[in-house]
Amino acid sequence: MLALVYDGQVSLRGDYPKPAAQEGEALVAVRMAGVCSTDLEIVKGYMGFTGVMGHEFVGHVVDGPKQWVGKRVVAEINCVCGRCDLCQRGLSNHCPNRTVLGIDGRDGVFAEYAAVPVANLHAVPETVGDIEAVFVEPLAAAYQVLRQVKFDADDEVVVLGAGRLGQLTARVLKPLLRKLVLVGRHAGKLDAAEKAGIQTAAADEFAPAARADVVVDATGTPGGFEVAMRTVRPKGTIVLKSTFAAAEPLNLSPLVINEVTVVGSRCGPFPDALRVLAAGEVDVSALVTRRFGLSQAPAALAAAAGADALKVLIDVE
Amino acid sequence: MLALVYDGQVSLRGDYPKPAAQEGEALVAVRMAGVCSTDLEIVKGYMGFTGVMGHEFVGHVVDGPKQWVGKRVVAEINCVCGRCDLCQRGLSNHCPNRTVLGIDGRDGVFAEYAAVPVANLHAVPETVGDIEAVFVEPLAAAYQVLRQVKFDADDEVVVLGAGRLGQLTARVLKPLLRKLVLVGRHAGKLDAAEKAGIQTAAADEFAPAARADVVVDATGTPGGFEVAMRTVRPKGTIVLKSTFAAAEPLNLSPLVINEVTVVGSRCGPFPDALRVLAAGEVDVSALVTRRFGLSQAPAALAAAAGADALKVLIDVE
Repeated sequence: MLALVYDGQVSLRGDYPKPAAQEGEALVAVRMAGVCSTDLEIVKGYMGFTGVMGHEFVGHVVDGPKQWVGKRVVAEINCVCGRCDLCQRGLSNHCPNRTVLGIDGRDGVFAEYAAVPVANLHAVPETVGDIEAVFVEPLAAAYQVLRQVKFDADDEVVVLGAGRLGQLTARVLKPLLRKLVLVGRHAGKLDAAEKAGIQTAAADEFAPAARADVVVDATGTPGGFEVAMRTVRPKGTIVLKSTFAAAEPLNLSPLVINEVTVVGSRCGPFPDALRVLAAGEVDVSALVTRRFGLSQAPAALAAAAGADALKVLIDVE
Repeated sequence: MLALVYDGQVSLRGDYPKPAAQEGEALVAVRMAGVCSTDLEIVKGYMGFTGVMGHEFVGHVVDGPKQWVGKRVVAEINCVCGRCDLCQRGLSNHCPNRTVLGIDGRDGVFAEYAAVPVANLHAVPETVGDIEAVFVEPLAAAYQVLRQVKFDADDEVVVLGAGRLGQLTARVLKPLLRKLVLVGRHAGKLDAAEKAGIQTAAADEFAPAARADVVVDATGTPGGFEVAMRTVRPKGTIVLKSTFAAAEPLNLSPLVINEVTVVGSRCGPFPDALRVLAAGEVDVSALVTRRFGLSQAPAALAAAAGADALKVLIDVE
């Protein structure tokens, strides 16, 4: 089958073995996939992953348990053991034995087919289109912020980073808050947020004032956390969404002096994301920058790395 | 009066002007004071403080409101405006207009007399001796951890750093927990903790296993936080008590991947500390390494900087 593979370098392979559904798995024919910043980290070689890339997708089940075959699905990306202490405690996203679709130890979805655990599948309601469905995984990650932090309608909240995840997080937070600002570097990205009714500020004009109740660092870059520490008020909360490979010089003393709480935040609840997409409560279509066919997947990666890129989609079917 | 002053260098001055109680203040004759790691940071010049050093003390009120004169007292160190937004919200420890006794903008207590706001005073019960009273401020800082984090009796808790604050934090936590380990570098400090019934581990033999529910970083050194990130379990909590001047290379991605919460923790509740000292629930006397007279205060600082030093006291009266 056709697949985008990383094995130290990116290559589009026409002869990649089509997977078979193992016990407990379903074979999914991928319809559409999305490029995430994690994919861009993988191709830098930082994450030690080799195999078929990609983890955001929608597809049809073509093999597996009868009740799933034919269904249009999305799938959670953490493939867990179900037996360890963390799985038993309901923290299966942190299973130490996990593989992660297209990220860690398991082939992903930039391919014609992917095998995924049946336990990870979620049926997609008819009212949710393919494009919206591809956003379920990152939108769920944005919803995770609501699970971890209690927001008050009068809270001052700043989202740092107007990229894919920052945009989605701001869209998730907007209905709950009167004072929300999204800070970004690129005029086009800020425009997209303004069109969704989100107040924005240009990063080079943003003056951290140590008064935000909650700051979400979705910059994905070194330096974001330091700005977050200067933006949050004493006793406030920083939600950390950024991961990157580099260590940066940091002095965490402001966290102590100002008694700030930092909450690391990763994957989130698929049902919440599916529900709001079905209800039309969050509009993600404006975040699509470009679409490529699977045979142009390397170009899709390059496009997603562009400074002004939001979501780049790969049409597989 | 006699006072230990830092003005770019440490000097013992016999001619330092005796303070007078301004409106809202009391004049306290210092009886005994304690040396804290913050004092040692100040003499490195990192904190920009000049004036009389010291903030841990017990004394007698000799001038001020009638109802206070003659009372044996301790005093909270943050001297606040009472009018700003943070003060009005009950977060006066974070008042942006604050001065801090012997740390920021206000003369401290390594002197015969100190002027402190009346609002900061706490009367010391007769059952609390002078030595115990000097520990009220750092013991309150240890109690702050209990205000910020909810502990379960079955939680696995690791305190990193067997210095002054680590020792006190472990003593505060011990009655609540079945699985508590204090990790330190110096055999003498670990012995002091073992004598208080606290399980200890030598830092060079401690293998972080990503399984502690809560980790308290009280190392006061770069590197402690990195160990804390490897010690805490996914979805666990790091309480950050360490402040130091240097920036260190840090990659915070483990906080995101493992969805760890970090809680910065500084000053705490004096009444809690006074209560347990009065009840004899926490024994601090074993933590006294040496005592010096005020005229030997420079030697007291040097002794407190020793690798094996716990609390060094200065007898003033």
